[in-house]
Amino acid sequence: MSARLRGIFTPNIVPLDSQGEINESETRRYVDWLIERGVHGLYPNGSTGEFTRFTAEERRRIIEIIADHNRGRVPILAGAAEANTRETILACERYYDLGVTAVAIVSPFYFKLSARGVYAYFKEIADNSPIDVTLYNIPMFASPIDVPTVVRLAEECEKVVAIKDSSGDLPHMMRMIRAVRPNRPEFSFLTGWDAALMPMLLIGCDGGTNATSGVVPEITRKLFDLTLAGDLDEARQLQYRLLELFDAMLLSSEFPEGFRAALQIRGIQTGNGRQPQSDGQKIELATLAQQLQCLLADAGFSDQPLGGCEATAPEVDPEQMAKIIADSVMGELRRRGDVGQ
Amino acid sequence: MSARLRGIFTPNIVPLDSQGEINESETRRYVDWLIERGVHGLYPNGSTGEFTRFTAEERRRIIEIIADHNRGRVPILAGAAEANTRETILACERYYDLGVTAVAIVSPFYFKLSARGVYAYFKEIADNSPIDVTLYNIPMFASPIDVPTVVRLAEECEKVVAIKDSSGDLPHMMRMIRAVRPNRPEFSFLTGWDAALMPMLLIGCDGGTNATSGVVPEITRKLFDLTLAGDLDEARQLQYRLLELFDAMLLSSEFPEGFRAALQIRGIQTGNGRQPQSDGQKIELATLAQQLQCLLADAGFSDQPLGGCEATAPEVDPEQMAKIIADSVMGELRRRGDVGQ
Amino acid sequence: MSARLRGIFTPNIVPLDSQGEINESETRRYVDWLIERGVHGLYPNGSTGEFTRFTAEERRRIIEIIADHNRGRVPILAGAAEANTRETILACERYYDLGVTAVAIVSPFYFKLSARGVYAYFKEIADNSPIDVTLYNIPMFASPIDVPTVVRLAEECEKVVAIKDSSGDLPHMMRMIRAVRPNRPEFSFLTGWDAALMPMLLIGCDGGTNATSGVVPEITRKLFDLTLAGDLDEARQLQYRLLELFDAMLLSSEFPEGFRAALQIRGIQTGNGRQPQSDGQKIELATLAQQLQCLLADAGFSDQPLGGCEATAPEVDPEQMAKIIADSVMGELRRRGDVGQ
Amino acid sequence: MSARLRGIFTPNIVPLDSQGEINESETRRYVDWLIERGVHGLYPNGSTGEFTRFTAEERRRIIEIIADHNRGRVPILAGAAEANTRETILACERYYDLGVTAVAIVSPFYFKLSARGVYAYFKEIADNSPIDVTLYNIPMFASPIDVPTVVRLAEECEKVVAIKDSSGDLPHMMRMIRAVRPNRPEFSFLTGWDAALMPMLLIGCDGGTNATSGVVPEITRKLFDLTLAGDLDEARQLQYRLLELFDAMLLSSEFPEGFRAALQIRGIQTGNGRQPQSDGQKIELATLAQQLQCLLADAGFSDQPLGGCEATAPEVDPEQMAKIIADSVMGELRRRGDVGQ
Repeated sequence: MSARLRGIFTPNIVPLDSQGEINESETRRYVDWLIERGVHGLYPNGSTGEFTRFTAEERRRIIEIIADHNRGRVPILAGAAEANTRETILACERYYDLGVTAVAIVSPFYFKLSARGVYAYFKEIADNSPIDVTLYNIPMFASPIDVPTVVRLAEECEKVVAIKDSSGDLPHMMRMIRAVRPNRPEFSFLTGWDAALMPMLLIGCDGGTNATSGVVPEITRKLFDLTLAGDLDEARQLQYRLLELFDAMLLSSEFPEGFRAALQIRGIQTGNGRQPQSDGQKIELATLAQQLQCLLADAGFSDQPLGGCEATAPEVDPEQMAKIIADSVMGELRRRGDVGQ
Repeated sequence: MSARLRGIFTPNIVPLDSQGEINESETRRYVDWLIERGVHGLYPNGSTGEFTRFTAEERRRIIEIIADHNRGRVPILAGAAEANTRETILACERYYDLGVTAVAIVSPFYFKLSARGVYAYFKEIADNSPIDVTLYNIPMFASPIDVPTVVRLAEECEKVVAIKDSSGDLPHMMRMIRAVRPNRPEFSFLTGWDAALMPMLLIGCDGGTNATSGVVPEITRKLFDLTLAGDLDEARQLQYRLLELFDAMLLSSEFPEGFRAALQIRGIQTGNGRQPQSDGQKIELATLAQQLQCLLADAGFSDQPLGGCEATAPEVDPEQMAKIIADSVMGELRRRGDVGQ
Repeated sequence: MSARLRGIFTPNIVPLDSQGEINESETRRYVDWLIERGVHGLYPNGSTGEFTRFTAEERRRIIEIIADHNRGRVPILAGAAEANTRETILACERYYDLGVTAVAIVSPFYFKLSARGVYAYFKEIADNSPIDVTLYNIPMFASPIDVPTVVRLAEECEKVVAIKDSSGDLPHMMRMIRAVRPNRPEFSFLTGWDAALMPMLLIGCDGGTNATSGVVPEITRKLFDLTLAGDLDEARQLQYRLLELFDAMLLSSEFPEGFRAALQIRGIQTGNGRQPQSDGQKIELATLAQQLQCLLADAGFSDQPLGGCEATAPEVDPEQMAKIIADSVMGELRRRGDVGQ
Repeated sequence: MSARLRGIFTPNIVPLDSQGEINESETRRYVDWLIERGVHGLYPNGSTGEFTRFTAEERRRIIEIIADHNRGRVPILAGAAEANTRETILACERYYDLGVTAVAIVSPFYFKLSARGVYAYFKEIADNSPIDVTLYNIPMFASPIDVPTVVRLAEECEKVVAIKDSSGDLPHMMRMIRAVRPNRPEFSFLTGWDAALMPMLLIGCDGGTNATSGVVPEITRKLFDLTLAGDLDEARQLQYRLLELFDAMLLSSEFPEGFRAALQIRGIQTGNGRQPQSDGQKIELATLAQQLQCLLADAGFSDQPLGGCEATAPEVDPEQMAKIIADSVMGELRRRGDVGQ
């Protein structure tokens, strides 16, 4: 029986060059940067790593680069979801040969499967994988993995050793822990929802795969340590700060562009993401970058932007906005054939 | 076996006076206005009638006024949902005494009931009601009534004689018709979704309870007649026009304020609704009223507004809007502690 | 500036007699029972109190009975939502005269209002209420109250003194606390989601309006005390136990029938609820009552049921169930005109 | 200006051999089978074609086989969505070289994009594609394409020539037609929702990409012809029959297994799909196959199954089912740590 996966695993953003290709040297530099700042493990080919926007070959190469550069310093959880169970099992075999610690496999997406379909999918993979498997539940993007399915897979499949849950639903996490841990004490529960990291740890989670740790690893790691040490007053303050950063990066733009923009401010050459941006989105992203720089400066991780940080949030009467919208946006929408549905 | 409910039943808006009280004389005038314009029936205390915003006494009085003034000219479908089954059955008895044709009872709301709970609710009412009952399915507001529940109630309850379905889901309507009509040929299927009235009639619906018929009864009635006459080309054009009016009234403001505003333009003194409006909403509603007047003028039911109808929809670059939003709205939201969730 | 609302407020179930009428004597006995077991306050006319299933007169009478019997022993938070703002303000005035501590007003339901509509609704009430107002956010049943709306109401309305949030969304609670508390230090944040009570308290909530406290007040109160005392290991164990009870009462039947059944086991004559139950639901509820009795016996609050607690959960192969379903349920559904949508 | 895409385009199921590999000879035979039965066009690599469960190489090979075998007999709409815009544009180029009529590109999935993100994605593809592009809206699986986005893309991109909409939302289709057709008369509107094919055609759709046409092309084609010929009574009856088949294939199993099973009955060796099935699902699928065979026999496309078609739907008291569920399923769920969430 191996030890539980524990601590903060960083979902790796993939730096791209000016041609949109994987920037290998920056990827390697980023690995060092993260490990130096204390993350417990790496998690490439996750949602933050935009695994769906790379080809199968690129996904494999990302793991190869990171495993090679890591040289065993920290555990690696490698995203291994491919087109179907056979391709996924092949990826498991490759990543096993590369020496990663475990794979993480997102629940089937695009098609919305029933609980039994989700079970059958993971069962076939787990029965044929040479490497430990982490279930990855992210119901906002993929078929949900419900509690009975986690219990059943944990009972029947020794190779299933963990679940990463990004639902942010705390009682759901408790239901899984209560049902699985008695029979599988080494099974690990990881949260992907940074906004609730402290309370998740307090009800028994073993750690997290948290996108903020790719941008401000110092904070995410410190929050983990303070919480486990029982220093809850300081932990609470840090959780509120992390929530502010998380919200700004997550909610203000197309995921994960906010994380990419913030990481750029921290000095990693992330390049532009592969999902095209409209002109309006580009303008918004520039505004967001300024605000992120202010948040990062406030946390001591960056200088303030040239214009300073005072004037970023002008007073706006929300009812005035209604007037603007009534005069322009609604008219435009109406002209275009839709009235705001 | 009585005849099926057929045709266009108008969900009555309730005119209010300057104190927010029921404006009885205008309510009476509105009844005449509607009947003169050809609606087949009246449907007070529905969603458009904002039944939840009146007291139990007021709801009864609305039915009394309308039944009294109608004097048997057209059938009345009276909304009878009250606080619980006993109160609802009492309302059924009162409305029966008033001589209305049938009651319509919305599925339980606030609490979201299972299919069996919905069944048990209607079963108890139907077994104790002296008057015919129309089931009212409006899943966006109340517990959904699924197909097996409709089938079961139609089989077990003679008093259940119709369903009004406002889901707008055409195949759902077909599933109900297919399952119920063979055993209950007099059972009536009414659609509450004006946007699909013509196709609903074409697949077998008997009519509709359509909010547009409270504002432009001439159009809704004519659409019904053309469709039944098989004059599909003209019907199609009218359906597109009705869709435009429906969307403008439905989607541009808090329901049913758009219908109220449009009816005011047509000369019925609707007064202000009981749901308070923010300053911004009031401005928007004024803008909407202008646009509705243009649509109504275009259909021949109103003069153009004083400023004319040319300049209402300024050209707006949607990407420019993003800049406005980035500069102001987002900043405001962020200041207020939420970044757009 | 008054003190914050703090602690566990019990959403009162309303005992009914064999005629379905309010059982006044049992309601009074229940108030004593709760106060003796340590709840900090009472909360009649909430969702657990099924306020929508009583008439306006009954809702007022419930408050009168409870306020009269309480005789100032504990604070009362009185649910005051009525048909429209005027009726609601009248209820506020009545409850103010009765001496209750504050009212709680659920966001508008049935109609789904925009954020601005929700704002306008509460603004009109707060500007005209003589008594402090608690906003009540329960997005599964009523229009959501978003963070900017809470912030705006807290800024503009002195009478708005608290929010009860039943979303169970922990980061959402943190966003409200972060945005409101600096300017309104006496504003209170209460969670209605028992399943997350401990973590909610740990991130800064002041207490809860928790349905479990109406059935096992000893546990809910002790969980509150242990959490505030920083005894997290014991608190965590109790939170897991409370989750088990909460899930069993909440998820196994039509809300709030499970709570009603469990309270009956504890010796309060709750009577049957007003929502009719199908025969199948009655059978299920009897099974549930046995299981609840086992859970309560396990917690020391009841004897075991006559048949004991060993055999309640037979081993079932989930795939066997599929066979049963394939052979019977699916066939039935298909016969009834729907294939499982 | 080329002609509009019109008629019934069949979303091709991909026959697999016993190893799960593409069965090329059966794929070729299936192409002939479909064309002989009158479908207007072919649509490989759609949702029914399970494009996400094939590798990029396999997707290309599927198009190559079908284009080669079709030899220009009918137009081909080739699904071309790949990992990112660059890969998708490369696919467009390849399929252009193969001589297909147009490509169909599903809206971005997994990540849920905003309307502007969806716009930017299609804009970049359309600006770089040598071949005409059909937008593919399937909101149950992928980011929704809203009306203003369709309008904008139709205005700015000559290469965007059609939309395939699988929402089944009839007024939504009308809103698109009304807004786009005046400026782009050759733009084509195709519905992917077989359950509403007749009404969709009646409000102006040009045709459909309908999964039923891959199984019962005779019916889907005839429904198209009857509707366009204005023979509505016969068309209506056929639409009801198609709905029954569509529901049975769609709702009774994991999509698209029901379609695969029915096609097998019609004599095409579809093989097993790539998504693993649990034991229970396999049993259900066998039951479904019997019921599908009865439906197909009833339509004249198959013999009855050996056991006949009388006894497939046993009478079941729905309340009895509750007892079974109370005794077994609920207990099982509770044992497993979840009570029915």
